[in-house]
Amino acid sequence: MTSTQQTSTHETRIEVDTEVPLVRIVREFDAPPAKVFRAHVDPELVVQWLGPRGLEMRIDRWDARTGGEYRYVHGRDGQEYWFHGSFHEVRPEDLTIVQTFTFEGVPDGVALEKLVLEDLGDGRSRLTATSLVDSFEARDAFVASGMETGVREGYERLDEVLRG
Amino acid sequence: MTSTQQTSTHETRIEVDTEVPLVRIVREFDAPPAKVFRAHVDPELVVQWLGPRGLEMRIDRWDARTGGEYRYVHGRDGQEYWFHGSFHEVRPEDLTIVQTFTFEGVPDGVALEKLVLEDLGDGRSRLTATSLVDSFEARDAFVASGMETGVREGYERLDEVLRG
Repeated sequence: MTSTQQTSTHETRIEVDTEVPLVRIVREFDAPPAKVFRAHVDPELVVQWLGPRGLEMRIDRWDARTGGEYRYVHGRDGQEYWFHGSFHEVRPEDLTIVQTFTFEGVPDGVALEKLVLEDLGDGRSRLTATSLVDSFEARDAFVASGMETGVREGYERLDEVLRG
Repeated sequence: MTSTQQTSTHETRIEVDTEVPLVRIVREFDAPPAKVFRAHVDPELVVQWLGPRGLEMRIDRWDARTGGEYRYVHGRDGQEYWFHGSFHEVRPEDLTIVQTFTFEGVPDGVALEKLVLEDLGDGRSRLTATSLVDSFEARDAFVASGMETGVREGYERLDEVLRG
């Protein structure tokens, strides 16, 4: 695919909050918010972009509605990384998703995530995604785990899905 | 019911964390942890104790398993207070529940709650329930909202259910 060789024009900003144990990710997309929203809830689109390059994503459960749940696996080189959570709220009308997230390798860890899309006009949108945990140690370990690469590459892949 | 006139011998400790926007509730019960756990997941038991005295609780949805969801209403004097959330994890083997919680009167507010039961032996147990939100303002507003009365009275009612 030639599209994987294109360089994204959008920076992914990843900030750690100073007051509360939260990570904030801000990213713009050259697509209207409804389209970016759909790429977060439609499992056939999600598997095309979520996570870093070179991983295969398979969905075990995916029910992207308020009260629904999900579980998926990222596989690479015979290793499997399982994740699961609940969709606390999926509100297309507000371009908002609130969900929980656990990496099953750390089964007692859980993050509360909020994703909000803003319409920037001209077919563009801005995503703000926050991830809240219950200690600064857990937050800093999450940031140090290399999540940054996965997030940046995932959004570059999402750019490609949105162009497709 | 004469049982409502008994005074509980157990204090409900409600602490606000100084580091993170979290409320911690600690309460002992004169019942083994499996019994207290069941009173948190069995809807026929939950409606008998959750919330302050004088409210009627009705369940709209209740699916207390990992990935399930709930929605209920507390009614008093013609007023209705709706709540909903997801059961991120329900682990009877670990005596642990992780769930989200939204009071629909504040629809953008959401808390991540963890409930853990410890076996104190001699048929007694200790519940530690934490509630995490994304700002100290929201946490302090929650504490100032009168949640303390509801929590204390709810656990007194739970004492009665456990004795029953």
